Amino acid sequence: MINKLVDKIQKTEAPIVVGLDPMLSYVPEHLKNNAFEEYGETLEGAAEAIWQFNKGIIDATYDLIPAVKPQIAMYEQFGIPGLAVFKKTVDYCKEKDLVVIGDIKRGDIGSTSAAYAVGHIGKVSIGSKSYAAFNEDFVTVNPYLGSDGVNPFIDVCKEDNKGIFVLVKTSNPSSGEFQDQIIDGKPLYELVGEKVREWGELHMGDAYSYVGAVVGATYPEMGKVLRKLMPNTYILVPGYGAQGGLAKDLVHYFNKDGLGAIINSSRGIIAAYQQKQYAKFEPAEYADASRQAVLDMKADILSALNCK
Amino acid sequence: MINKLVDKIQKTEAPIVVGLDPMLSYVPEHLKNNAFEEYGETLEGAAEAIWQFNKGIIDATYDLIPAVKPQIAMYEQFGIPGLAVFKKTVDYCKEKDLVVIGDIKRGDIGSTSAAYAVGHIGKVSIGSKSYAAFNEDFVTVNPYLGSDGVNPFIDVCKEDNKGIFVLVKTSNPSSGEFQDQIIDGKPLYELVGEKVREWGELHMGDAYSYVGAVVGATYPEMGKVLRKLMPNTYILVPGYGAQGGLAKDLVHYFNKDGLGAIINSSRGIIAAYQQKQYAKFEPAEYADASRQAVLDMKADILSALNCK
Repeated sequence: MINKLVDKIQKTEAPIVVGLDPMLSYVPEHLKNNAFEEYGETLEGAAEAIWQFNKGIIDATYDLIPAVKPQIAMYEQFGIPGLAVFKKTVDYCKEKDLVVIGDIKRGDIGSTSAAYAVGHIGKVSIGSKSYAAFNEDFVTVNPYLGSDGVNPFIDVCKEDNKGIFVLVKTSNPSSGEFQDQIIDGKPLYELVGEKVREWGELHMGDAYSYVGAVVGATYPEMGKVLRKLMPNTYILVPGYGAQGGLAKDLVHYFNKDGLGAIINSSRGIIAAYQQKQYAKFEPAEYADASRQAVLDMKADILSALNCK
Repeated sequence: MINKLVDKIQKTEAPIVVGLDPMLSYVPEHLKNNAFEEYGETLEGAAEAIWQFNKGIIDATYDLIPAVKPQIAMYEQFGIPGLAVFKKTVDYCKEKDLVVIGDIKRGDIGSTSAAYAVGHIGKVSIGSKSYAAFNEDFVTVNPYLGSDGVNPFIDVCKEDNKGIFVLVKTSNPSSGEFQDQIIDGKPLYELVGEKVREWGELHMGDAYSYVGAVVGATYPEMGKVLRKLMPNTYILVPGYGAQGGLAKDLVHYFNKDGLGAIINSSRGIIAAYQQKQYAKFEPAEYADASRQAVLDMKADILSALNCK
């Protein structure tokens, strides 16, 4: 799956991933009204509004991008109907041949991580049958519990040709509270980065490992260090755009081959029509605004990479 | 909600929580057969088998215990039908007036943690309405992202009278890989413990905070230190029984008031009928075996507490 991701990044010339993290406040009124007319102001109504919103964005952008990253929390908050739309979104993106990175940030003791792994990227056995319940291509994993909590995901990756991205240095302002603490002269995130490199050696693709890392765009100096520390690790980079990460800083996350990183933007793409820059797009044209935002993001990153 | 939990622990004289972490291999054949006859060997069939299994255990134990802790991964692996049974289990336990601790170990950047918080312990707004999608009383939270990732849960706790347990030192063998690393002379788990104490001061109940901690039974010396470090923090203790934690070691997790800790057992209770000690129970009597295991666990812990 890491090979497929790299291949698609090369074909689209777009090292970017669209974060499908819908909030109801992003959904244009006409879509909300339609959904609420059919289902009322209910969990089902909210889920339907989000589904229609997602579908519009996917249809308008899938030919430009290699991958999407739905954030499950945004669906989980709407309970079962929301999670059903998470699954519907995953399935639809896969029909469009997009690589799907489930941003689930799970991680637990061994047997529990194994359950998350089979549920999201593997197959669960039921009697003589087996089923892929959510069927993402990659998921994000929280490393706080150590190897026990990560290895079951790697086992499933091996079986089902899937991948993971392990949180190393997250993009949020307080990520340093624990992640930057110094241990034997180096920060915890470097220690986690070293572990990710080790875990990655357990399951290599052609040039990159099936075990990737999450490193926030908002900490470019740390990104530079981590890039060198984990040469065969694909880095998933959240925090570009709305969270403050700039393209010129992102060049440090890439290797000399022009690969090794994939930059996520969520709000900046999916809610583009609500931004000044895209004010010419009416709410009914929200998907066109998202397409334009993808094109602009791609140009921004490629131009920064060319200046490297 | 922390006051309710303490009150129920005192009334039942049982500082224990039953982990509703069903695996299909725990479910007696007759329940699986019934479910598969109705729904086939499908996700729905597996979910139904687990629901019937849970219901039997809840009916047989609810009068003895203050709380249950369903592990969402065990449901999530069966996709939407599994998660629907997670919700059904939460609802049923609340009908029985049990305190429900959703073992979800979520944690993300601020806006995403907020979505998890409203979805699991709060209410999500949809137009003019609001809904409690999962409606647990407490959830477990992963601290790796720092205060940003925890505060949205605390905000929702304040609004909706709910609580959280933050992972401090987990029960699994490799938990020390990161959690035991020494920072300025003390391990990371102590630093996290100090933060939990600080976060806890933001929202106090009568004697204990709405912000609790998870500290594994398998590390009693660390439990002793953390108990002193977080005097007003309720400690949720996984790892008793099947994972190797012993009652005599658990006394260190309690305060002098006999409170301050609640011990979880999952497999030891819910799959008791599969164990040698309860071999006299037939599979059809699995729930009676669970009841006996609760009584034995309660006696074991109380006797250790009395010897303190």
